[in-house]
Amino acid sequence: MSFTEFPSRLLENAVNEFASLPGIGRKTAFRLVMNLLRRNSSDVRKFGESIIKLREEILFCKICNNISDTEICNICNDERRDRNVVCVVESIQDVMAIENTRQFKGLYHVLGGIISPIDGIGPSDLKIDSLEEKVKGGSVKEVILALSTTMEGDTTNFYLYRRLGKYDVSITTLARGLAIGDELEYTDEITLGRAINNRNPYQQ
Amino acid sequence: MSFTEFPSRLLENAVNEFASLPGIGRKTAFRLVMNLLRRNSSDVRKFGESIIKLREEILFCKICNNISDTEICNICNDERRDRNVVCVVESIQDVMAIENTRQFKGLYHVLGGIISPIDGIGPSDLKIDSLEEKVKGGSVKEVILALSTTMEGDTTNFYLYRRLGKYDVSITTLARGLAIGDELEYTDEITLGRAINNRNPYQQ
Repeated sequence: MSFTEFPSRLLENAVNEFASLPGIGRKTAFRLVMNLLRRNSSDVRKFGESIIKLREEILFCKICNNISDTEICNICNDERRDRNVVCVVESIQDVMAIENTRQFKGLYHVLGGIISPIDGIGPSDLKIDSLEEKVKGGSVKEVILALSTTMEGDTTNFYLYRRLGKYDVSITTLARGLAIGDELEYTDEITLGRAINNRNPYQQ
Repeated sequence: MSFTEFPSRLLENAVNEFASLPGIGRKTAFRLVMNLLRRNSSDVRKFGESIIKLREEILFCKICNNISDTEICNICNDERRDRNVVCVVESIQDVMAIENTRQFKGLYHVLGGIISPIDGIGPSDLKIDSLEEKVKGGSVKEVILALSTTMEGDTTNFYLYRRLGKYDVSITTLARGLAIGDELEYTDEITLGRAINNRNPYQQ
């Protein structure tokens, strides 16, 4: 079934909007719209309004750039968190991923991207100035660079190290090594090589 | 990444709404919502409104039950179409699929489903009474049963035949046989058996 002609402009508009989302083709979009059509009107209104409200009312935390319903996010507002440690991440998703580990009790700083010359993203497109201001202030004792282990991540790490290294702050990165459940045989040689070089005392 | 805690209720609401769509999991929903967040506000408002308007303003054609922006759909309104032939289909998608072939010049009748005891759908849940009224009126010369070749389709065909057979109307079904591109070797035996029994004179 292709879509040369729609029986309704309203239908066509809705299908086009859904099809503009990443990974949603026109057939899937049509299926989603037909599903909405079968729901009652107030549910569909709630759906539509949740999208509009999200975009128009969402805020980004003034301290860490994390997504938030308030000017300062819940994490930055939480008195129990360690203000001496700042974990630098690429995106909001990364904040959520680290939060879900329940292992980190410091604050975050969301860069809003990663240095990627191919995509035309340079340091000035990211929230690096405000990070430097924080570090310059002197209250931060440790900056954890928690970026992806890709070329872009490494480039950004290197750039951040150069910008922040001159201040009195310790700069760390996430441990690299074998993931839980990895089989040696199928581990790439760079990861395996680092895992051997950075070996740890055995702990029972 | 699981989603135990969202940094924002607005974000959580929007993700929940998308995740309520068929085939959209929570990770995909999150990705779609993050995509919307990167767009400008007026585009997102258009997206949301297209959904709300669709549900609140859409009409179903009073004659054929096809989706429509007007009380009578474009097909039923089209003077050039043959009012003597009515093609009975399960859904709006089927109307669009047949329209795309550009082979059919009659009218449609959308049942809005198919008889399926397992799903609790009986004849009274479908637009069968209005179909019978049309046929009873006497202007319809042919009813084409264009339902899926499934057990539910066959059941519905049988039921419709019993309801409509008593009127002066010819009742036909779509031709069954090999699909274009089918290889004999991989064709199921029922299809192949029917294709042999319903063989046609060879046309050059």
